[in-house]
Parts: sequence; C-alpha cells; structure tokens
Amino acid sequence: MPDGAVAPLGVALVGYGYWGPNLLRNYMELPGVTVRSVCDRRPEVLQKAQTRYPSVTVTVDLADVLADDDVDAVVIATPVRTHFPIAMAALEAGKHVFVEKPITDDSLHARRLVDLAADRSLVLMVGHTFVFSPPVRRVKELIDAGELGDIYFVTTQRVNLGLHQKDVSVIWDLATHDLSILYYWLDEAAETVVVTGRGCVTASIPDVAFVNLRFPSGVIALLDVAWLSPVKLRRTIVVGSDRMLLYDDTEAVEKVKIYDHGVDFKDPQTFGEFQLSYRTGDIVAPKIDMTEPLFSEASHFINCIETGERPITDGYAGLRVVASLESAERSLNNHGGARRITVPRMAVDAGDRA
Amino acid sequence: MPDGAVAPLGVALVGYGYWGPNLLRNYMELPGVTVRSVCDRRPEVLQKAQTRYPSVTVTVDLADVLADDDVDAVVIATPVRTHFPIAMAALEAGKHVFVEKPITDDSLHARRLVDLAADRSLVLMVGHTFVFSPPVRRVKELIDAGELGDIYFVTTQRVNLGLHQKDVSVIWDLATHDLSILYYWLDEAAETVVVTGRGCVTASIPDVAFVNLRFPSGVIALLDVAWLSPVKLRRTIVVGSDRMLLYDDTEAVEKVKIYDHGVDFKDPQTFGEFQLSYRTGDIVAPKIDMTEPLFSEASHFINCIETGERPITDGYAGLRVVASLESAERSLNNHGGARRITVPRMAVDAGDRA
Amino acid sequence: MPDGAVAPLGVALVGYGYWGPNLLRNYMELPGVTVRSVCDRRPEVLQKAQTRYPSVTVTVDLADVLADDDVDAVVIATPVRTHFPIAMAALEAGKHVFVEKPITDDSLHARRLVDLAADRSLVLMVGHTFVFSPPVRRVKELIDAGELGDIYFVTTQRVNLGLHQKDVSVIWDLATHDLSILYYWLDEAAETVVVTGRGCVTASIPDVAFVNLRFPSGVIALLDVAWLSPVKLRRTIVVGSDRMLLYDDTEAVEKVKIYDHGVDFKDPQTFGEFQLSYRTGDIVAPKIDMTEPLFSEASHFINCIETGERPITDGYAGLRVVASLESAERSLNNHGGARRITVPRMAVDAGDRA
Amino acid sequence: MPDGAVAPLGVALVGYGYWGPNLLRNYMELPGVTVRSVCDRRPEVLQKAQTRYPSVTVTVDLADVLADDDVDAVVIATPVRTHFPIAMAALEAGKHVFVEKPITDDSLHARRLVDLAADRSLVLMVGHTFVFSPPVRRVKELIDAGELGDIYFVTTQRVNLGLHQKDVSVIWDLATHDLSILYYWLDEAAETVVVTGRGCVTASIPDVAFVNLRFPSGVIALLDVAWLSPVKLRRTIVVGSDRMLLYDDTEAVEKVKIYDHGVDFKDPQTFGEFQLSYRTGDIVAPKIDMTEPLFSEASHFINCIETGERPITDGYAGLRVVASLESAERSLNNHGGARRITVPRMAVDAGDRA
Repeated sequence: MPDGAVAPLGVALVGYGYWGPNLLRNYMELPGVTVRSVCDRRPEVLQKAQTRYPSVTVTVDLADVLADDDVDAVVIATPVRTHFPIAMAALEAGKHVFVEKPITDDSLHARRLVDLAADRSLVLMVGHTFVFSPPVRRVKELIDAGELGDIYFVTTQRVNLGLHQKDVSVIWDLATHDLSILYYWLDEAAETVVVTGRGCVTASIPDVAFVNLRFPSGVIALLDVAWLSPVKLRRTIVVGSDRMLLYDDTEAVEKVKIYDHGVDFKDPQTFGEFQLSYRTGDIVAPKIDMTEPLFSEASHFINCIETGERPITDGYAGLRVVASLESAERSLNNHGGARRITVPRMAVDAGDRA
Repeated sequence: MPDGAVAPLGVALVGYGYWGPNLLRNYMELPGVTVRSVCDRRPEVLQKAQTRYPSVTVTVDLADVLADDDVDAVVIATPVRTHFPIAMAALEAGKHVFVEKPITDDSLHARRLVDLAADRSLVLMVGHTFVFSPPVRRVKELIDAGELGDIYFVTTQRVNLGLHQKDVSVIWDLATHDLSILYYWLDEAAETVVVTGRGCVTASIPDVAFVNLRFPSGVIALLDVAWLSPVKLRRTIVVGSDRMLLYDDTEAVEKVKIYDHGVDFKDPQTFGEFQLSYRTGDIVAPKIDMTEPLFSEASHFINCIETGERPITDGYAGLRVVASLESAERSLNNHGGARRITVPRMAVDAGDRA
Repeated sequence: MPDGAVAPLGVALVGYGYWGPNLLRNYMELPGVTVRSVCDRRPEVLQKAQTRYPSVTVTVDLADVLADDDVDAVVIATPVRTHFPIAMAALEAGKHVFVEKPITDDSLHARRLVDLAADRSLVLMVGHTFVFSPPVRRVKELIDAGELGDIYFVTTQRVNLGLHQKDVSVIWDLATHDLSILYYWLDEAAETVVVTGRGCVTASIPDVAFVNLRFPSGVIALLDVAWLSPVKLRRTIVVGSDRMLLYDDTEAVEKVKIYDHGVDFKDPQTFGEFQLSYRTGDIVAPKIDMTEPLFSEASHFINCIETGERPITDGYAGLRVVASLESAERSLNNHGGARRITVPRMAVDAGDRA
Repeated sequence: MPDGAVAPLGVALVGYGYWGPNLLRNYMELPGVTVRSVCDRRPEVLQKAQTRYPSVTVTVDLADVLADDDVDAVVIATPVRTHFPIAMAALEAGKHVFVEKPITDDSLHARRLVDLAADRSLVLMVGHTFVFSPPVRRVKELIDAGELGDIYFVTTQRVNLGLHQKDVSVIWDLATHDLSILYYWLDEAAETVVVTGRGCVTASIPDVAFVNLRFPSGVIALLDVAWLSPVKLRRTIVVGSDRMLLYDDTEAVEKVKIYDHGVDFKDPQTFGEFQLSYRTGDIVAPKIDMTEPLFSEASHFINCIETGERPITDGYAGLRVVASLESAERSLNNHGGARRITVPRMAVDAGDRA
C-alpha cells in the first residue's frame, strides 16, 4: 500500500457493463485515488470507457490488471457467477477487493474469499449499496441511539412491475437488498427463514416471495418481494418498544418518519389482569442529507484500505447474506418449510463474529 | 316459517354488548321483519335496548326467546365462547341462526352446527361482514368476470396501533377478516398455512403475525396483521395475469383501483429464450356504492330464510375460516412450520363442498 | 347572572333545524348548565327535541323564552336572516347571546348587536366554530409563540363537489370559515379584498371564487372556495420568515405539519448583490388533541358569562367577517375590482378595536 | 430552404448557458437536421460544446452564424433581454427562428418579431415547452374532444421553495408556464387580470402572486405561484360541465385523473325552484406516454419549417403571453386593480387572430 500522503491509491475496475460506469465515475472523482485500468472481455465497451476517460488504460486481460504493481485495489462488477474466480485471483495477487453484491452465488465460495482476505490482511468489501444510502444510515443511527427502544419486528415491501431476471429468482434479485439492510440495522443475521413464493409468469423462476425471518434476539421480519405489482413500493416499517418508524424510499422528501407511538403498561388493578394504554405523539420526518450512496461506498472502501479499518459491508456481511439467500431459496422450493440459516464458518471467525 | 306475504318474520337478538346495538338498529329497519325480543344476561344493558326500542321485549333468559313460536330466527352477538351452545340450542328449537364471526372457537363445534342446520333444513349464517362491503363485492365481481385473468397472488396488510385482546391472538382478531374475504373472492380455502409471529407487548399473546397461505389452485397469499404499527393500513393487492388491483379501505373515495398492467410474452427469438414485455395501461377507480354492509348482511339473512337460498357466508364458510385459524395458530406456536389446513368433515358435505 | 356556585346557568336554544341538535347535545352535557327550553316555529321538530330530552320545555313562541327569568343565555341557530331580530330581542331582554355564523347578513345590523351588548354588558358571541378546532388552535399557538417568524402569506383551498345553496354565494357559505380562521390567527382583519368568481351551474349564484386579501401588516392571503371540484380539499399553507406549515383538515392524523424551511440571507459579496440560501430542515406533525370543537365553543361561552371575559369570537369578530364578506361580494359583482373593507364603527370601539 | 429530400436542414444554436445544452442534445439527435454551429460570447462554454460535439463549429460572433448560407434556422437560448435583437437579426438574415420563453421582455418587441416573420414568411416559434409535454397534450385532447363539456374554471398551483430570480418577479418566472398552458388548452387569451402579490424575501421582487384571470368565453382561472412554499406543488384542476380533472405533474404515474363527476339539473318542481343533484362516477388515470417534451418541441419546429405549417407555439402565442405578463405585473404594482390585457396589434393579425 502506498503512503497516502505521497502516491495516490491505484484502482482497477473489472467489468464495464450495466453498473461499471457508475462505479468508474465515482472512483474518478475520489481524491487520493487514481483509476489505472478498466478490464472487460468486450473490446467495444472498453472503447466507450477509453473515450470518456482517456487517461485510463483498458484491457481485455485480467492478468494485465493483476500484474500492475501500481494497482492496489480491484473493483469487480462482473456477472455474479464470475465474482468468485476474479476475486480469488485478485486477493492472491495481493490486491484489496471490492465486489458487487451478491458477493458470490455460493456461500462456500464466499467463505473462501473471507478467509483468504483475512489470511493476507487485505480489505474485502461487498457492494451492499443501500447500507450507504442516507435514509438507511439515519435509521441505523436511530436504532443504535436507542430511540426506538427494543426492536420488535420489521416488515418491508419491495415490489414493482419488472424486471424479471432470466436466471435467478426474485429472492436473489430483491431480497438481497433487504437482508443487507436488516443485518446492518440489527447487527445480527436471521437464524431461520420460511418462504412462500411462486413463479407466476414463468413457473421455474419465482417472481413473488414472502420471506419470513426470525432472529436470535427474538426480532421477526417479513420481506415481501415481487416483480409483479400494480404499484411500486419501497416501504419498510420498524416497530420498537418506544417508537416506530416508516421508511419509504419512493418519497421525495419524507423518506423516514418517526412516530412517537407505543403501548404503555399500567399497574395491574387486580391479579392476573394487565392494563395497556396506547400512546400517540408527534411524528417527525428528519432532514435526510442527499449524499450519493455510491460515492460514500467508494470513499469507505478507500478509507478502509488506508486505515486498516474493517468495512461495514465486509466479506462476512456478504457471506451471511448469501447463506441466507440459499436457505430462503431452499425453503421456497420445499413448500415453505422453515430452514435454519447456517453460515459456513471456520475458526478465525468463531470467536468474534459468528 | 310464516307465510312471507302475511306475517312478518320474527327475529330475536341474543347479546346486546358492543356489537349488538348495530345489529338491532339494522334489523329494526328491515321491511318484513319484526324484532320480537332482545336477550342478554345483564339487566342494565337490556334497559338501554328497551328505552330505545319500546316495542321490543327484553329478557335475561334464553329459554324465553326459544320458547316464542313467533321467533323464526335468532341473531347471536355474544362472546365467542358462547356461540356454540347458544346456536345449538336455537337450531334445536327450530330457529334459523345468524351468528357473529368467528362462528365458534373450535372447528369441531362449527362442524356440529353446520351438520345440525343441514339436518333441520335451517339457515345458518355467519357474520363475515366484509363480504357484504361494497368494495369487497366489487372486487369479487371483477374476479368472477375474468377482468383480472388468472389470480396469481394476494397480499394484504391489516395493521394499526391497538386494540390488544386479552384472550385471543391477533390472528383470531384480524386475520379472520382477511380469510373470509379471500375465501369469498377465490371460491376456495387455503390448503397450507405458515405463520411467523410474536407476542411483543405480552409474550403469551401474539400481536403481530405474517400468515402465508397456499391454495389448491396455486394462488398464494400473504396476510400481514398487527396491533402494533405507526400507521393504520388496510391495503390489499391482487395480482392477476391480465390486470392487477389495489383495494385500500382507508381511502375515502378511491377504495378500489384497477391497473391495466401486466406482462406479455413475445415469440421467442431463439430456442430456450423467452421475451417478456411489460404493459402499463389506464388506471380506473370505479365508483363504489355506499350501502351499509350490515344492512346488506341482514337483508341477505332474511332473504335466505324466505327463499331457502344458501347464504354466501353460510356455516361452512364460518367453519373453514375457523379451521384455518386453528392451523395458523398451530403453525405460529410451532416455530413457523407449514401446517395443512384440514376442515373437519362428514358425509353430507363430502360430495358438494369439501 | 346566577351565582355559579349556587344555581346552574339557564340556557335556551332558539332554532332546532340542521345544526340545533348538535348545539343542544353539547349544552346538555356541560356541567353547571341547565337547558331550560327549546324554541322553534315548527311543532314537529320540537316534538323530536322533547322526546330526546324530556326535561326540556319546548315552545313555538320566542316571548316565552325571553320572559323566563331563569334563562340567562340564548343560543341562536335559526336561518341567517332572522339572527338580527332574535338576537336584538334577546339582548334587550337582558340575555347573553350566542349566535351561529355569520352573525348577521348585514354589517350594520351586526354593528347594532355589538353596540347593544356593550351597552348592556352582556356577552355576545358568534359561532366561528373552526376557531375552537384543535388544529386551528395549534396553529394559533405556533404563530403567537413566534415559531413561524413574521407571517408572509396564507393560501387556502376549501373546495368540494356540493352543496350549492339557493340563496347565498359560495363566499358567504365557505369563505366565512376561512376569514374567521385567518382573522383569529393574524389578530387583524384584511383591509382590501379582490375577488374573481363565477356562477357556473346557476349564473346568478357564484359557486367558485378566488378571494385575494391584503392585511394592514402586509400579509396577503388567497382563499380558493368552490362547490365544484373533482376532489375535496381543505388545505391551508402558512408561510413565515422562519418556518412554514401545512394544515390539511382532511388528513386523519397529520393535520398540521411544520416545516423548518426558509430562506437565509448571506452577507453580500459585492454592493448591490444579495445572496440567498435555502434551508430545509425537519418536518414535524405535532400530536393534535381530539376535543370536539363544539364542546369547547359552548364551554367558552359559558365561561365568558361566568367570568366576564370577552369571547375570542365576540360580536366584533362576527362583525368584521360580515363586513369582509360584503366587500368581497361587491368586488365579485364589480368585475374583480379591489374593495376596501370598512367595518361599520362607532365611538365605543374606536379606541380599542377598530 | 433546402429540399428536405436532398440536403439536411442546417441549424445554429445561439446561447450555450443553462438551457442551451439541452436544446443542442435534442437537435443533434433529430433526423434530417445538421447542427452547424454554436454561438456564445463566452469562449470557455464554447469549448465544452466543442469537446462534446467535435463536428460542430463554435463562434463568439453572431455574424458568423448569420452569414452561413447553410444555416436555415437559428435556435436562441440567451438571456431574455437579448432575445429581441438576436431574433430580429436572424429573421432579417432570412433564418427561421426558435426562441426560448418568454419570447421577449416587451410585448411591442414581440409584436415586431411576429410581423417581421410574417412579412418574410419565416417560421417564428417560442419555447413554451409544457405545451409539448404528454400530460398537457392529453388534457388538450380531452378538452377538444368535449370530454369535459364546457370549461367552467381552472386553478393551478406552481409553488416550491426557490429559486429566487434577481431581476424578474415570480410572475415572469413561473406564471409564464401556466399562461402558455392555459391559452393552449382554451384556444383563447385572458381579457382581464387581477394580481395580488408580495416580495417577501426582497421587497422589490415579488416572490408570491395570486393571479386571477377572466377569459372572453367566461372561463375564469387562478394561478397561485410562489418561490416560498413548504411543499412543491404542480397541481392544476380543470372543472367542466360534464367532467373534471386533476393534473398533478409531481405524480410519477397518475399525472392526469379524470373524474366523471358533475351537477345535474332536475326538472323544477315548482316555479322559481331549481333542483340539483350531484353525480360522482368512475375516476380514470389514462396512460400517459413518456416522450421527452424538448424532443417533440424540436421536431415540431423542424416540421413547421419543412411543411410551412404554423407552429402551435408561434410568435403570436409568445406575444400574448408576454402581453399578459405585462398586465399582470402592472396589476400587482397597482394594488391589485383589474387590468385589461391588450395584445399589441397591427392590420395583418386583426382579421385572423386577434
């Protein structure tokens, strides 16, 4: 790693398809960073990158990227099935790695990436971008500050018309977002999952799923995800013992609303009787800043490299989401039976994380 | 049964607590009906009924009601645990019976009421009032007319802050409504149910539950019910192969909105490939009339007595809802395992209904 | 006036039509008050009052009411054109008077009522009920506490489909509410009014009007009132130098929302240049209590009688609203020319009010 | 004018500031059009245009543009005060002219442009872009098809926080849009205008205005425009004798909603009495296509040049909006007095347009 004060950090982008240009734009604007190269198997897309950013080297060969000693970090935005081999190669070449979500399509592969990064003391971060969006962070702050009290449950709707994927279910496509958000908020992963779903348009590819989760702390959660819906919904309700909130990402202004509502216990009048009273108070929509999530995410990656800090969305965060998706998928295919979520583990994590 | 053209139909109301006054008011206004008596164990509430309706006889003794030959039908609005003995006694006395929902708190009891009513050729109807609400009926018409195409799935949210019941879970309190609506719309009962829930305020009484249902036709449904929520929601989404709709009972005007949205298949370009395109068309909020559901319900009961027609919400409809609630409750208490819904049956129903 | 500690205050209601029953119900429930009589010219409506409240004397003759020494106060809910003679007679008989809005249909008449009440030291109050509604009072508190800073302007929409009146324009019917609210909030009456309106359904009766007001303090206001609208709107925006608010009376919960938004000046960089920056902060929907406005209004009337306090909605408040309506009406009929609002006055008021 | 089938139409853009790049992008994409040059007084902005579009000639000298025989049309997006001299020069050089709104800051100047274009048989079009937006066009189609019946009145709110202009009032900034939309819908211009407004933040520059309009047909309209508002509103209500509609440009999906609501007359029961009944029917949000207004506008300009068709937003449309703005401004400064709107005219227009 170069001395931050002297040489800029060298970054290479692998994969310049749908999402890559967004990443490249943000890394180009980061102070203290030089984007050295862009790698893709398709010469025609490389030409677009070259035209827009003449200073960047383009190549179809990953080996070129990995052989460049001035590349400190590799950012991977290729199709999911290729995340694992590219990330492995990059880590083995001593590069820090940022990989788009989901980290892999197999939790055992994710486990291997996590372990290799730990062995080599390299940063491994996954692109759970919502974790860097201002409303999601604001909710995290509220939860951590105890504003909501104990969290009772969370429900979320992420539904709209389209876009059906050809190879993965709506769970891998949409529930990934909600799992990464929930695990971030709650600082824990679900222990069981039960899913009811259906392939409506194409029987073999579920396009609607009701994902029920149960967490070690007792929290329960419902994820309602679908590619079929009359309206676009991005609504999450978090109910705590002291306050409740509504996070609606389709709202232009009032994305987060905090309700000073709850249930209070009164002293029982007689044995065996309980008395409840309902409290409704002010409703506050706090101002949410407008920072672009991708920029915060890229800054965080670079900062972790420079400081050695562990990323909020580290490889382990990616791993437990993938393990949860696998269990959810099995539950769906198994007529909605409850599945225990098991995160593949090894000794190093046993103590501090799992 | 009196000759409808000559004598009015005699009705007695049993139970004059929270709900009874609403029933009484509607039956008093029904043409061709005479409310003969009101029965309740509490003399003080009987006095209120007497003051408001001086023409009605009041009594604390059910036997008085059942002994009155001019009482053709008994309307029961007592606590749930007393539905069964009162309804049994009324049927045995040869009275037609209307009983508030849920029909009983035990499906075997419901089965016995259904069978007895069939044996005696008496009308047995349950107060699934939402089935008589104009927006619910409008949705039924749309489904039956094929406007939505094949139904893919239904999701519903029935959440608000309060009112916690002391003896039953949120499932018995709120999901009862959604089950009666769904079974009416779909003309079928769910075959399996999976529930994740939790008692947040009082650990022993679930106050939030995510109820996943699977129907014989392949339809799946999600019922999100809770006594804890920052906002009051009464929203149902129905997605069909041709159209989709949103039914929001909290809206003053646009309670039902029909979206001419869907997914169209295109001819595959290559073998093994499918092509989808999304269609979004007009959105229509049809005018919904304002008839009071309770009045329609009472009229339907009287009409069934007079014509011998089977009520839309007959005893069997009440029975299958209770059986579903029992299975849902067992799933919730069994860590969310899937439960088959089994409606207790006997020979008479096997052929035509079950 | 009886000693409050000994004898209850005697009240008589004159006019038992559309609104009277609401007033009667509230006065019946007021502690320290006895409703002695109800007066109406129609025997058939008196019978209804008698049946519901057997303790009350009913009469078709106003003289009976005024001759009753135990009647301390008269509450008038008759057609507008009769407000003046009835109120005059009551004041002359030494009774305190509450009269429905508008106080009269002629500002000179209103002036005479105000003067007579002052001469006789009797309470004269007008039923500007919105002034007693919790959200309107909450906004008043915010303004008086300086939370909004200096008020810049107010806009309000009070539109819906129906109900066309046969004898008065939409201005007398709907703008009355907004004028009474505005004058209460701002502690001043408009000095000029400009109206553009039209009789759409019946040319002779304006059913839509845009009422522009200018106040001595510099505040301007827009009242958009109509009996023709695709949607029902009850929305008021108040913009101040420090904060802004939205009061939407059709909202079930968030009736008042306070926006910590504004414009800040920056130090000018060069002479003649100004720099503005926009500030957007938290949005708060304070909890609004649910007290019934009519009950608060009736309590206030009784309290003013007992304490000698001047009513918030005293005769003068009624007078200046009527004077404003007259000027608005003249502007509308005069092709939208600006009209000065002149409140008829006499010496007694000149010093402290006008 | 070149033969459309042989040579492409040559276009030059004058003014490459805030809006120019949007125009340039659209003209670059138009088939049958070649953008030959971009002119601006600032070399640094020209360089940006050159970098993005290397094929285009850039120049600081308008004379270069006008001297180029291959330039058939000039598109003007300079500050308003320069519209007149540049457009005059272009017309005199025989170029067709498209000029951003408002066409000029003086109606006499606009008159001269209209006349010169007529003399020379050149197309003169003004950039009233909203006229080309799909929801505005949809409303126009509904009105023209008679779906709404006779139009009674229109109200519109165009308010939000910011952006205060330093040299023009909110009327010139925002009401321009509403006037151009209204005049397009109604096929007529207002004959009188009354304005109440105020400079809240800076006393000399009105930042809120209530603009009341009266049209020859009897239609009245209200424009509520402000740079100060707690919420952003872009709402227009159109009330007709047969139907009513709501056009809300802030809605993502249901931008236009048509209400089959109205008032029906019944046969009078007695002389002098009228009977009204209110009709509420279905509400329809028709699908609105997503064409970019700027592209439609540019296509229309080119098409008018090629076919000789008169632009929908021709110079005269620009002129009458400017004349209306001038009258509105005078009314505002004259304490809200009513002002007659007089469009400067000469013989040529008297017959067919004015």
